[in-house]
Amino acid sequence: MTTNILSNLNNPADLRLLNEAQLPQLARELRDFIINIVSVKEGHLGASLGVIELTIALHYVFDTPNDLLVWDVGHQAYGHKILTERREVFHTNRQIGGISGFPKRSESIYDTFGVGHSSTSISAALGMAIASNLKGESEKQHIAVIGDASIASGMAFEGLNHAGVTNANLLVILNDNAIGIDPSVGALKKYLTAVKEGKNPRQNNMIKSLNFDYSGPIDGNDIFAVIKELKRLKNLKGPKFLHIITTKGKGLKQAEEDQVKYHAPGKFDAVTGEIIKKIEDNLPPKFQDVFGLTLLDLAKKNEKIIGITPAMPSGSSMNYMMTAFPDRAFDVGIAEQHAVTLAAGMATQGMIVYCNIYSTFLQRAYDQVIHDVALQNLPVIFCLDRAGLVGEDGATHHGVFDIAYLRCIPNMIVYAPRNEIALQNILYTAQLGLNHPIAIRYPRGRGFIEDWQSNYLGKYEKIEIGKSICLQKGSKVAVLSNGTIGNNVSLALANIKNPEIIAHYDFPFVKPLDEVQLHSIFQKFKSVITIEDGTIKGGFGGAIVEFAAANNYHCNISLLGIPDEFMEHGTVAELQQSCKIDVKSLETLFSSY
Amino acid sequence: MTTNILSNLNNPADLRLLNEAQLPQLARELRDFIINIVSVKEGHLGASLGVIELTIALHYVFDTPNDLLVWDVGHQAYGHKILTERREVFHTNRQIGGISGFPKRSESIYDTFGVGHSSTSISAALGMAIASNLKGESEKQHIAVIGDASIASGMAFEGLNHAGVTNANLLVILNDNAIGIDPSVGALKKYLTAVKEGKNPRQNNMIKSLNFDYSGPIDGNDIFAVIKELKRLKNLKGPKFLHIITTKGKGLKQAEEDQVKYHAPGKFDAVTGEIIKKIEDNLPPKFQDVFGLTLLDLAKKNEKIIGITPAMPSGSSMNYMMTAFPDRAFDVGIAEQHAVTLAAGMATQGMIVYCNIYSTFLQRAYDQVIHDVALQNLPVIFCLDRAGLVGEDGATHHGVFDIAYLRCIPNMIVYAPRNEIALQNILYTAQLGLNHPIAIRYPRGRGFIEDWQSNYLGKYEKIEIGKSICLQKGSKVAVLSNGTIGNNVSLALANIKNPEIIAHYDFPFVKPLDEVQLHSIFQKFKSVITIEDGTIKGGFGGAIVEFAAANNYHCNISLLGIPDEFMEHGTVAELQQSCKIDVKSLETLFSSY
Repeated sequence: MTTNILSNLNNPADLRLLNEAQLPQLARELRDFIINIVSVKEGHLGASLGVIELTIALHYVFDTPNDLLVWDVGHQAYGHKILTERREVFHTNRQIGGISGFPKRSESIYDTFGVGHSSTSISAALGMAIASNLKGESEKQHIAVIGDASIASGMAFEGLNHAGVTNANLLVILNDNAIGIDPSVGALKKYLTAVKEGKNPRQNNMIKSLNFDYSGPIDGNDIFAVIKELKRLKNLKGPKFLHIITTKGKGLKQAEEDQVKYHAPGKFDAVTGEIIKKIEDNLPPKFQDVFGLTLLDLAKKNEKIIGITPAMPSGSSMNYMMTAFPDRAFDVGIAEQHAVTLAAGMATQGMIVYCNIYSTFLQRAYDQVIHDVALQNLPVIFCLDRAGLVGEDGATHHGVFDIAYLRCIPNMIVYAPRNEIALQNILYTAQLGLNHPIAIRYPRGRGFIEDWQSNYLGKYEKIEIGKSICLQKGSKVAVLSNGTIGNNVSLALANIKNPEIIAHYDFPFVKPLDEVQLHSIFQKFKSVITIEDGTIKGGFGGAIVEFAAANNYHCNISLLGIPDEFMEHGTVAELQQSCKIDVKSLETLFSSY
Repeated sequence: MTTNILSNLNNPADLRLLNEAQLPQLARELRDFIINIVSVKEGHLGASLGVIELTIALHYVFDTPNDLLVWDVGHQAYGHKILTERREVFHTNRQIGGISGFPKRSESIYDTFGVGHSSTSISAALGMAIASNLKGESEKQHIAVIGDASIASGMAFEGLNHAGVTNANLLVILNDNAIGIDPSVGALKKYLTAVKEGKNPRQNNMIKSLNFDYSGPIDGNDIFAVIKELKRLKNLKGPKFLHIITTKGKGLKQAEEDQVKYHAPGKFDAVTGEIIKKIEDNLPPKFQDVFGLTLLDLAKKNEKIIGITPAMPSGSSMNYMMTAFPDRAFDVGIAEQHAVTLAAGMATQGMIVYCNIYSTFLQRAYDQVIHDVALQNLPVIFCLDRAGLVGEDGATHHGVFDIAYLRCIPNMIVYAPRNEIALQNILYTAQLGLNHPIAIRYPRGRGFIEDWQSNYLGKYEKIEIGKSICLQKGSKVAVLSNGTIGNNVSLALANIKNPEIIAHYDFPFVKPLDEVQLHSIFQKFKSVITIEDGTIKGGFGGAIVEFAAANNYHCNISLLGIPDEFMEHGTVAELQQSCKIDVKSLETLFSSY
């Protein structure tokens, strides 16, 4: 690989010393650099490859970091990071102590706004642009780069709707590649496709109707075309909109051809592009597949079952049901608010709706959970994927607040399965009719039961709502765990010298609490430990101390979980260790009794 | 007033027996009926007057309740309620035990979806329509009536974006009167105005670009025109969009002329329309005015200060600053998500942003608070108006979850002033630079200090972050109150026989807690009572019991606040009584020690 140009660039000022004629070569080098590192270190691939030309062009034409550049979501910002003083550390991407997989203000002056969740860039860049005007910096440009999946989210529309009536120096660049993580959906996508095909070039231009100066579509992988247009736009005041067409995964054949898989392909051969298969024999299933396969099985037996995912069919494994029952399983795009209220509307008509949303993204639909579902006590089944610490995606993606923000809502049932069997059984139980909404939170990644699919899938047992389970009796201390983190407790207990002094209870229900069991625990034990994969403040442990206070129990209660700080990226094991909820830390704690 | 027709109508089936020629008379009678009752009983006026013809036409043409009708927000649904079996109880509107001011499923089969917050109707009706198709009820129609202010909210866009690619029998009716509670804003509003003025009748039709069958605009106060068009649309399958133009307040001269004031005018003369002024001499100020006047004063002295309100300039009193500094105070429309991230973007550029959002509506921007503000530790100042019990607006509007949903977020400061002086002082302190985001929650309505404006406004004292105040020493029990509910405690203590046994501490900071004070309290008292105007679960009391557990204090702690149920409508006093946090209940409690 030749890196003659790239290896001499430290920042955009260096870049701007190049001739335009050198830029295609730089684009090739930048692609190779990303492919070589991501193939070994893993991470997001396709999005960054698609915007290499745009990335170079933006830093070439605009005066970054004085001009302010906001990347929406940030999956596509690897090229940006490498060109902005982070080439040398790019190999630490997503590792603990290394650089973040997303733009992050504390990491670089070139990262003007921290991202991770989608559709924030227009609002953020507009805020910056208004501030610049007020500060008398009316020459400054502010650029939001947003994909076609992200711009279809309501928040982006709100930003456009405001920007269109301002005189802010805002340039919105729509990076239209017809795909987010999964292929884009919805009426806007259909419209954009028509525009691309020249079928609707002038009529009914949605963006123009929002008062923007619209240009495009142009080929976003043609670096000279992009530079030419950016140079023109740089000198225009007010809100502007540029529509570019790019190919996700551009430059790596397999990534262009299988854009879903190469969004974040894991390790692959940098030369051939072949994904390097992990040895996965006899591994326990992913919780995502437990969800997806169980839902599929239940949907076969109960035609009232409906599935909804906001833009995560493959990530959540909702795609099993979408393939089998395309009329009953819906990808609504990045539209969590709509997803939840759509589910509520369906539930009013007697449908049994499994609304699968990553825990961190349900934050986007909090009001809809309260106002449209819980207040009306509609029995929507929320499946909160990627609850708890998620690992390498880091601070923007940990699903650690859901227990606290859900358990204050009347009518809600809040449940965290300890393992695959509990997950499938609660999915089964929920469709029997709970007369309440339920949130089922489960983590990213693999479970614990290797033969789950062959031996357990479809063999359901009804779960009694609000019931806890005594996993191990003990004499001195009671450990109350919620969800899969209970397996760390079990492993720790298996390793200590005097396990008989520690009782272990699985409390899958944060709400309603098993008060009968709690009374017996508090009457018996002087020391109680709670542990959860969520924030200590307001979480499961909080529910237990509130119960103790309400009932005048006075034993010592220790709360373990996520402390009151944003957890950064790293492996789940590393992050658990820093929270002292890993097996080793628990062994030490339990041994101290 | 003649009510010959209306008085014989019990439900829409009766309505459908009338001749079309009788309907204008019915419209007059229905207007009179609403004006006569609302003039005495108070409530929302203008919105319902504007859609009288639409309301009659919808129930006349469609087969309600088999066809499903969803009113967005629901301010406009009084005519609907009166025509659907609630004429006789309409005078109980918004009173405790009476009918709700909003559509509510538990109240009537004609209220297909509970509303109160805006922009949910399209998603809900689409969910119903998809369910009907799955159930083989493909003849059924599903109608969402949404205003031009509400349709500009992101969630409505998400619903349209999905609906446009379905074959659902969904009719979206845009009730375009160019006003929500305050006049509508934004690029979409500008576009709709152009359409109305015939300037943009065919070009760039935003709705068509979302794949809808669009018709209109038609005069929505012309009952024959509306009926004719609804009859045509009734027989069309798939997603349809009808744009109607109405006049808010139609039929009452003053209400048409001052649409903001007559949104909810209080008592007025039913004949002349004159608002009956309350005797308001020497009343304490509204907290809203304390906010608005203080912000104005601070903004005069500090040019970095910016104000943002999502569609509540008059309700929040942000309009003081908007009038004085139109370049620095923004009404962004019903767009809470955008409002918060816009504030974050401004804060990155050193601006001091007061983002005023009603507590219940901040639920709409929960993710943005976490992901865009707190994670980046941007010092945005959230002013949460209408926190706690709000009274007659009821279950959809109480701001009771904010303490629980905010205190689990790292970096957040959470503060509730006890009175007007504390509110102005924290607003002052916040702009001195806290290096953290802060949420300042205060209630709807009046404070306690009659001469606040003349004697205190502008005389600022810096508040020490995290500091509590001992209001009264005591020997036996410590009461820890958060916010204005502490005044109930003070009043109760003034009325009991042995006030000296009760100590009273004002803990305005839920986060950070005054740990020094807490240690001294827990070391001294065996009984502690916490009281807050928010949910007990996960709230301020929860923070106190978590502190006690973490520090091994073992006294009795009683938590007072909002129990784990949705509170209905009623006066604040009535609702406080039902939660046992009113003065009388506290007297009884304190006397029991």
